[in-house]
Amino acid sequence: MSQRISGGDAFTSISPAEFFYRNRQMAGFGNSTLAVYSTVRELVENSLDACDDSGRLPVVTVDITTKESDVVSVTVSDNGTGVPYEHVAEAFGKVLFGNKYSARQRRGTFGLGATMAALYGQVTTDCPLEVHTQTEQSTGKAYRLFIDIEHNIPVVDTVADLSRDGPGTSVTVHLKGDFKRAQDRVLEYLRMTSVTSPHARVLLRVNAVTQAEFGRWTDTLPKRTTASKPHPRAADVEMLKRMIADNNEKRLKDFLTSSFQQIGDRTVSKLLKYVFLDPRKNVGSFTREEVSHLSAALRSFDGFDRPEGDCLSPLGREVFMASVGATFEVSFSAYSKRGPSDWDGNPFIIEGVLAIGTGFPPSEVPALYRFANRVPLLYDSSEDVFMKLLKKIDWARYGLTVPRSVSVFVHLCSTRVPYRAAGKQSIAPIHEIEAEALPLFRELGRAFAKSAERVARSAHDIKKLREFAKSFGMVAGFGAALAESEPPPTDHLVASLFEVNDDA
Amino acid sequence: MSQRISGGDAFTSISPAEFFYRNRQMAGFGNSTLAVYSTVRELVENSLDACDDSGRLPVVTVDITTKESDVVSVTVSDNGTGVPYEHVAEAFGKVLFGNKYSARQRRGTFGLGATMAALYGQVTTDCPLEVHTQTEQSTGKAYRLFIDIEHNIPVVDTVADLSRDGPGTSVTVHLKGDFKRAQDRVLEYLRMTSVTSPHARVLLRVNAVTQAEFGRWTDTLPKRTTASKPHPRAADVEMLKRMIADNNEKRLKDFLTSSFQQIGDRTVSKLLKYVFLDPRKNVGSFTREEVSHLSAALRSFDGFDRPEGDCLSPLGREVFMASVGATFEVSFSAYSKRGPSDWDGNPFIIEGVLAIGTGFPPSEVPALYRFANRVPLLYDSSEDVFMKLLKKIDWARYGLTVPRSVSVFVHLCSTRVPYRAAGKQSIAPIHEIEAEALPLFRELGRAFAKSAERVARSAHDIKKLREFAKSFGMVAGFGAALAESEPPPTDHLVASLFEVNDDA
Repeated sequence: MSQRISGGDAFTSISPAEFFYRNRQMAGFGNSTLAVYSTVRELVENSLDACDDSGRLPVVTVDITTKESDVVSVTVSDNGTGVPYEHVAEAFGKVLFGNKYSARQRRGTFGLGATMAALYGQVTTDCPLEVHTQTEQSTGKAYRLFIDIEHNIPVVDTVADLSRDGPGTSVTVHLKGDFKRAQDRVLEYLRMTSVTSPHARVLLRVNAVTQAEFGRWTDTLPKRTTASKPHPRAADVEMLKRMIADNNEKRLKDFLTSSFQQIGDRTVSKLLKYVFLDPRKNVGSFTREEVSHLSAALRSFDGFDRPEGDCLSPLGREVFMASVGATFEVSFSAYSKRGPSDWDGNPFIIEGVLAIGTGFPPSEVPALYRFANRVPLLYDSSEDVFMKLLKKIDWARYGLTVPRSVSVFVHLCSTRVPYRAAGKQSIAPIHEIEAEALPLFRELGRAFAKSAERVARSAHDIKKLREFAKSFGMVAGFGAALAESEPPPTDHLVASLFEVNDDA
Repeated sequence: MSQRISGGDAFTSISPAEFFYRNRQMAGFGNSTLAVYSTVRELVENSLDACDDSGRLPVVTVDITTKESDVVSVTVSDNGTGVPYEHVAEAFGKVLFGNKYSARQRRGTFGLGATMAALYGQVTTDCPLEVHTQTEQSTGKAYRLFIDIEHNIPVVDTVADLSRDGPGTSVTVHLKGDFKRAQDRVLEYLRMTSVTSPHARVLLRVNAVTQAEFGRWTDTLPKRTTASKPHPRAADVEMLKRMIADNNEKRLKDFLTSSFQQIGDRTVSKLLKYVFLDPRKNVGSFTREEVSHLSAALRSFDGFDRPEGDCLSPLGREVFMASVGATFEVSFSAYSKRGPSDWDGNPFIIEGVLAIGTGFPPSEVPALYRFANRVPLLYDSSEDVFMKLLKKIDWARYGLTVPRSVSVFVHLCSTRVPYRAAGKQSIAPIHEIEAEALPLFRELGRAFAKSAERVARSAHDIKKLREFAKSFGMVAGFGAALAESEPPPTDHLVASLFEVNDDA
């Protein structure tokens, strides 16, 4: 596998497990604080996805034990689907193996997270990963497993029958880490998790003592997402070739209408004229050049509708505003949503809540809370596309001229979240996302401006009300003096006058 | 390979090529501007490494052609070692294959860069990568090749004999990209490249017209780095197990002294007492627990010397200051260096130049120019560990109280640069690196303070000098009047007085 050449170094191939073993900081495991944080995060993400798949209201417990000074044990338990036995070893012991690749919104990304935590734990403590899982169809098994990093294959150390209270999974990682330094972020992560997963109950126990409990804020399960056919703008040459290979014998017209969303009968005729290829020809017989031409046409044709949103699961106005309100003291909030739209054919929706309240640091730029596919993003905000856009907005234009306790919660939902790094902490600068986020922030800005106007107006109204009350009192007093009687009450008159005015 | 389960999605394994195809933004290919920039950068890095391996002064030419509106062709040619034919296909057509993994400083990291550019080009234009290479031992061949992304294997389209002027490699990538938007950054990248590779000549041609030429600022080749044995602090369980497997029959004592640097006869006796394992036992017979115990001991023993620096290639005081001076108008500069030190056993050195000059934006915090293993880092500065530390410094303490045109050039040299993402734009927050960078910046701050003091003192001196000159003149005038002669010149007396004082 390895051969030395003159002047250089040996040429070799390495496994993806080896790549992330050497570059663990790229996956969020760069130091002993981040390692604890990322372990909790990856396991909680997996748990919540498994619960949503099961259709049960999630109960996720995070247990952290810090026996030795620098070894931290993290156990995350859920009441989700459980993992089928035949997949346990690879799902937790093979990098780039997983069940997260489909065209629907999920928290986790593909095949790195939990395995990365296992790998880091193994390398720093030599302890195996512990998995205890049970599905609806099975009675429970407990695994201890290692990763053969050089070859990227799981090595099961022990398996034992062990039943659980019900379906679900518990995963334990032992790792070298600094929980003291990670604690605040872990708490903040779990608190924010309950903002975008308000149907979940999340508990944190440290050395067997309950430290915090968040949610549940609603008993309604999020709408079930369904995987959707690809949008034609996603069809780069690579993808198109694979789709053609799976549909070798279809004629071009049938291939287009059956393989993609947003290609109905009307669109397909316009599209075929634009594509300028024989619609009766089998796609399997296309030359490389024809496939390449078809891909270019699909990506440049401007007659497609926006992608469907069925594969996405935004929180929606009521839920998002309510869960922000459940987590912070909020005196005013507004909601806005953009999309579904797409980047490189991947559907996305952005939704945001602007909130005024006492819990936010006063500033002339709103505090930003970022979420992607219901996962809070706490690190690396300054390079995040949303942070950059938020700072671009002239908030003074919307009346934010003195420091105020105001914040913006932004939630990106997509079948593929363009994270800047495998550690999944910030969003890359994708033009199509910028093009929706900027108007979203402006809409929230206008909502703030209106609220500010309302505050200004009501201050004005109170002043007027006082003047009216005085005048009314005087007039009534005059009348009463003339009639030599007691002055009648006038307050209700003033009040009714302003009631009429109030919503004008 | 794929199996659907109830409630979830299919479990599958994907190749590393597929992973980066889906997550190209993690490798620096997130949009059409970054794609052009990263392509240039990856190819230039490879070229300069190949030139340094050849022992020749590098001449690297970047040719950019923008025929169609959105297709950019990037060709980078060098006079380096060339690539042996048996490795061409995999070196450019297989993700995680390369020759960059050895314990010495190199620009490139392992097995992603050029292949990623090829992959992005193929997916966006359906064009093959073109490689024309010749070694000292061969007469030249031209390749066109594709990547089978699903399986991560190279597919050679054509090969032809074709000789070059001499050894070296030219690589051409055709990609969808936006050169107009990338142009400024590409220029800046090449300009900064010549700061930390001052022995290289770098040319940029756009549509066959020479646009810029940088360097060469020195004819001296950088000191040749040599791969070094690992430092014992690098021996995590994984690495130790592999080393033991290669040295099965060695006794513990021999194993330690022959496999690691900084374990000499004196250190080994102290270490063996600390380790508390039988020094005569074959390492191959150690139990898992014993290996784990040995690893923990190697990582916690505090009697090791700092790592050797032979595997590292800092620029050094003269070269670094001279190349900053060749690139910017500089009126004052200072140099400082920290290390060799290590993070997780990986040796590193940090060197920095503080420069005052007209080309830097005036500010109360110095402008920061970042470099890692002689590669300039232009993007994502705000999350970079050096930027965060630079901002932590109280520059006012060092006399930077009003905006000044001052900058800091910081260069991290390491056998492993802890990039935050595969796009290699910023450095992760590693404690050991922070612990050296902070005092480095402070030293540079003190150098600035001294320069500021000198400016202040010389202003003071000029005032005093004027007073002395006046008094001396008057005294001489009196004398002359008494003697009824012309007053003698006194300027030289004043000057010599201040010469004595000047360096006191």
